[in-house]
Amino acid sequence: MDMTPDDKLQLVTEGKARFRAFLLPVTGDEHAGEDTPLDKWEQRGVPTRSMPVFYNPAMVVNRNISVLGVHAWKDNTRGSTKICDAMCGAGIRGIRYLLESGIDDAHVDFVDLNPAAIRSCEENIALNQIPPTAWKTHVQDANAFLYGRAVHEEDRYAVIDLDPFGNPMPYVDGALKALRRERGLLHLNATDLAVITGVHRLATLRKYQVTPMRDVPHHAEISARVVIGAIFKRAMAQDITIKPLFTLARHHFIKIIAERVSSIDQANVDRQNALGYMMQCRACKDHHVVRVDELRASSECPACKSTHVDHAGPLWIGELQDAGFCKAMLASFKDFRYMRGKQETAKILGLAAGAAGFPAGSHDVHEIAASLTLSPPSMEIIVDDLHRAGFLAARDVINPTAIKTTARRVDVGNILRARHHA
Amino acid sequence: MDMTPDDKLQLVTEGKARFRAFLLPVTGDEHAGEDTPLDKWEQRGVPTRSMPVFYNPAMVVNRNISVLGVHAWKDNTRGSTKICDAMCGAGIRGIRYLLESGIDDAHVDFVDLNPAAIRSCEENIALNQIPPTAWKTHVQDANAFLYGRAVHEEDRYAVIDLDPFGNPMPYVDGALKALRRERGLLHLNATDLAVITGVHRLATLRKYQVTPMRDVPHHAEISARVVIGAIFKRAMAQDITIKPLFTLARHHFIKIIAERVSSIDQANVDRQNALGYMMQCRACKDHHVVRVDELRASSECPACKSTHVDHAGPLWIGELQDAGFCKAMLASFKDFRYMRGKQETAKILGLAAGAAGFPAGSHDVHEIAASLTLSPPSMEIIVDDLHRAGFLAARDVINPTAIKTTARRVDVGNILRARHHA
Repeated sequence: MDMTPDDKLQLVTEGKARFRAFLLPVTGDEHAGEDTPLDKWEQRGVPTRSMPVFYNPAMVVNRNISVLGVHAWKDNTRGSTKICDAMCGAGIRGIRYLLESGIDDAHVDFVDLNPAAIRSCEENIALNQIPPTAWKTHVQDANAFLYGRAVHEEDRYAVIDLDPFGNPMPYVDGALKALRRERGLLHLNATDLAVITGVHRLATLRKYQVTPMRDVPHHAEISARVVIGAIFKRAMAQDITIKPLFTLARHHFIKIIAERVSSIDQANVDRQNALGYMMQCRACKDHHVVRVDELRASSECPACKSTHVDHAGPLWIGELQDAGFCKAMLASFKDFRYMRGKQETAKILGLAAGAAGFPAGSHDVHEIAASLTLSPPSMEIIVDDLHRAGFLAARDVINPTAIKTTARRVDVGNILRARHHA
Repeated sequence: MDMTPDDKLQLVTEGKARFRAFLLPVTGDEHAGEDTPLDKWEQRGVPTRSMPVFYNPAMVVNRNISVLGVHAWKDNTRGSTKICDAMCGAGIRGIRYLLESGIDDAHVDFVDLNPAAIRSCEENIALNQIPPTAWKTHVQDANAFLYGRAVHEEDRYAVIDLDPFGNPMPYVDGALKALRRERGLLHLNATDLAVITGVHRLATLRKYQVTPMRDVPHHAEISARVVIGAIFKRAMAQDITIKPLFTLARHHFIKIIAERVSSIDQANVDRQNALGYMMQCRACKDHHVVRVDELRASSECPACKSTHVDHAGPLWIGELQDAGFCKAMLASFKDFRYMRGKQETAKILGLAAGAAGFPAGSHDVHEIAASLTLSPPSMEIIVDDLHRAGFLAARDVINPTAIKTTARRVDVGNILRARHHA
């Protein structure tokens, strides 16, 4: 794999970083944005494994949140300033951490198996005039590198960013090992959506070892829970667990920020309570969760008592968002008004903070309204109506037409009907 | 961890190898043999993590089988002579492969994170006058080493031996990656029996991610299936699978020899057919298997129709032994008559070859006879009686008082009764 020819490199600015990289082409009049579905990217043939050193402008909001996440965590690093950009490519994530995370004396190890990527990364580091004490590059397999750094606690990282092409699971064990015991922070992107969502069902069963579920309105949340569940299963085999702090699922990526929690007791508690199945009733179309040890005994829908209930999992049925962490990201947002995509970034963080604390799954207001042949009210109105009826409710961050709520599907339907007849 | 003081080192011969190592102490008049239960070792405090460079005489039969296994495989290595002793300690396994496996120009990489182990290993290599072209030592984390060797096919191994203290699962991904695509051979020992068997149930659920089952006569076979199932789950996440060639469970270890099979299609087939649950009926005490996708739908015992059926898994419900491989080991046994423990070694290989091809689980003749208040006939007689009644039957290799058979428990009971009244 040679380096991209120089004449195709473009100078780009993102956040406080400038860099030269191969810009992903946008064909015709399509706008490649956060919501461009994965299959569109795949149809256009980009990104591909044979084009390793590229800049994907559609990921700007994703990277903004990464920067805000490290910034919000900086008081927890307790003197460790070591960050690992484990599949660095052209280096954009690591460079932005150095320029924007606010960690004094931050040091980034940039790792990539592709020498062309490391050359590109080094040029971009130079372009941003980063002092040589703040970084080191490594042409190495990410796992070989991470396991080497995992041996001694003093070599481990405060933050590890895993942003592979496709499935991140092969790197999760090494990353969890190479994080500091106390308050290590994992940033992870998954882009193998066709596998995670169950489009390629056999691959889902092999690689994530879960039964997938696709034809439900909260399928994107299920996908995020599949990824977190897979990370957690790797963690508990190491006698540790994870605490998800921020979770997002979009058409072409799933993004997780999670803390390494080095506690066997908490791992046992999470295995029992936070690992399980999302159940979907074929009769009333409501959903519920069962814990991992209870699938075999579970048989009927708690809402309508039907015994025709499908399951997806085992996956993470615990918290997806930490309200405090999301609010901390929002609180420092005023320092980041220079960011491209800042409105979308702030909106996501606000919704994520509000979505914390709710049961797994969501109710899609548009889908329920359509099933009742009603036109849906605004999301604000339905949230207000649910509050007045005594339920907790908030807009969902993952599905923009859904609400997180303690109400059942039938309750949401009744409120839609009442609003219609009001 | 310092090296063991020289005055405690003893000169030992095993197979064709001579070496100096700290001999595991045998207290009182106890004989430390293959069948010394794990808890005895644990009570005596040996081996422990703080005593890293030791020689365990109780493992001689285990290592004999390793040598015979590599010898039987030598025509499959297709020109690759690379062997990795990934947790080499004093180097006994790798040295025996070099001296006894019959592979021309064999080369062994000896890997250990402990510098004292590598020094001991190098002294033992010198003691056996092995030429410097045949080996290299590496003070390195096993995973960091294995992932580094996994990048390029030409660096990968024909044989990798994983013999860690305790749980081998943290090294399985790296070992599978670092095996040659074609006919790579994995040797693996697990000694964390209290975890595998479910004595420490929460640890079983965390580390092997299976529901264990202890109070059945074939619990040792279940334990071996737990380990193989865990290896297979790691393999299928890599789009490959494994073919177990030899499986043994003893009081203080589980030993697996398996081929890496680089086929997504076979991985899918194995996931569907060879991963599942061992079911135990509380009413009639017979056992059966269900496939991994069928647990939720399964409810009754096929023998007695009781619905009180416990499950263990997900675990490997496929083949444990490959008759051809076991017979190949036996066929070359005449060249290995110098081996200490040769009678036990040959007996195990013969039983393993005979146990191939049977359904999962076994029937313990002594236990069934006791439940009927009969005294058991010899194993040979019951096997003959089962053959005459039209069942396939053979002595089990894992449980010496059990038979592998196509008969149900009730059939075995009827034959015991008939023999008693004959």
